[in-house]
Amino acid sequence: MYTYLRKAQYHETDKMGIVHHANYIKWMEEARVDFLEQIGLPFQEIEAAGIASPVAGLSIDYRTPCTFGDTVEIEVAVEKYTGVQLSVSYTMKNAADGAVVASASSRHCFLKAGRIVSLKRENPAFHEILRAQVRD
Amino acid sequence: MYTYLRKAQYHETDKMGIVHHANYIKWMEEARVDFLEQIGLPFQEIEAAGIASPVAGLSIDYRTPCTFGDTVEIEVAVEKYTGVQLSVSYTMKNAADGAVVASASSRHCFLKAGRIVSLKRENPAFHEILRAQVRD
Amino acid sequence: MYTYLRKAQYHETDKMGIVHHANYIKWMEEARVDFLEQIGLPFQEIEAAGIASPVAGLSIDYRTPCTFGDTVEIEVAVEKYTGVQLSVSYTMKNAADGAVVASASSRHCFLKAGRIVSLKRENPAFHEILRAQVRD
Amino acid sequence: MYTYLRKAQYHETDKMGIVHHANYIKWMEEARVDFLEQIGLPFQEIEAAGIASPVAGLSIDYRTPCTFGDTVEIEVAVEKYTGVQLSVSYTMKNAADGAVVASASSRHCFLKAGRIVSLKRENPAFHEILRAQVRD
Repeated sequence: MYTYLRKAQYHETDKMGIVHHANYIKWMEEARVDFLEQIGLPFQEIEAAGIASPVAGLSIDYRTPCTFGDTVEIEVAVEKYTGVQLSVSYTMKNAADGAVVASASSRHCFLKAGRIVSLKRENPAFHEILRAQVRD
Repeated sequence: MYTYLRKAQYHETDKMGIVHHANYIKWMEEARVDFLEQIGLPFQEIEAAGIASPVAGLSIDYRTPCTFGDTVEIEVAVEKYTGVQLSVSYTMKNAADGAVVASASSRHCFLKAGRIVSLKRENPAFHEILRAQVRD
Repeated sequence: MYTYLRKAQYHETDKMGIVHHANYIKWMEEARVDFLEQIGLPFQEIEAAGIASPVAGLSIDYRTPCTFGDTVEIEVAVEKYTGVQLSVSYTMKNAADGAVVASASSRHCFLKAGRIVSLKRENPAFHEILRAQVRD
Repeated sequence: MYTYLRKAQYHETDKMGIVHHANYIKWMEEARVDFLEQIGLPFQEIEAAGIASPVAGLSIDYRTPCTFGDTVEIEVAVEKYTGVQLSVSYTMKNAADGAVVASASSRHCFLKAGRIVSLKRENPAFHEILRAQVRD
């Protein structure tokens, strides 16, 4: 299980005294980028191959708030991968007590020159790396 | 139909040259806050009554990117309201051509002194304002 | 005197209950972009001419905090313009009582193909527009 | 010399392809918070003592842009400390080549119950920790 550690920053809190909910979307990106790097598929290489992998959609459930100084463990996993579409799941836990902070999911497609492509056909090497992450 | 106008800012773009997807979550909040003010339920009054209405969850589908200088029309509506839970829907369109930029939904509960409460029981006046927004 | 109106958003507050100081830097950019548009020099035209005008430096003094729901009036003016360098000044006032929220200044140069250029030589039309803004 | 390491994130870039200048202000805060923790003066303790240390002003010079994936080394030091006012300096260098990304400075005062206080008188223990950081 891959985990990304993230410390909640002061500038990420809001007047309720907790991390503002929009920041979790940025944490998902940071965790996804780091996860891809760990599995041998750094974003820079994807971009260098002329492929973009934008966020097509996402959903998130906010459970227990976290705040400035908390360390959050973000478990990242490939939820689904078809060669054309990728879904990534995120479970965020407060490192102090294991409380689930949020659980989320993001969907991605692959673009080349602005058109949706099959990563399987476009780049078999990248495809194999993602396919190997699918849990049976 | 209530619509919030939002101009996409330079600082909201990313290296793909488009508005970064996390910013739409902030736009949803801005539009929701303005919508509540328009229907006679300003956030400041809710907070002054000791009630918080945090985001319990959200989902968003990204359709057509927008970028710096674009004006986006965000249609906001109460999707569902039970007296305890509130769902708000958002349809974002590029003002230039009407293209759907994103469609989204957010779920909210009501808290008083940190506990989930029924807004219907806690504040009948606020309750009526929201109930009147439910489309038949 | 050109003034940009900006409403402080919920997502811009921090756990002190006030607008986080980093957001004022974004407001400066928004106000500058709008000011340039008002004087006939929209950012998009500058970029279309292949010219970038990055922020070379800035300074800001924070005076009176503002918070969610406050409307801030940002007075923008060309402080100095030499044809090669541009300084822009910003005075932010709370619309409710005229209290100075912050005063700031940003410095800019002009780049073409990544090199510093004289706007005066590179684009006399743009140069004239900025020069006319210099207060005697 | 204390150094804070910060990886530039995708969501921090803008359409010029580089880290947007407003994000450096957040990095300054992150580095300052971590620096204070390292010298034995965590922000949480300062806040627990009822003392706030807001940013009274800042200035920054942007030198060499950095972008997504770059690691930036932020050297933090107490520039000046009088018991009433604190100035912190920041030198940001690209870890890859040592190029100076930005150099900056922030000024802080100390507040208790909303009033400016002398930290020297208010909290001699905190005062000693900061005083020991002043370079001769």
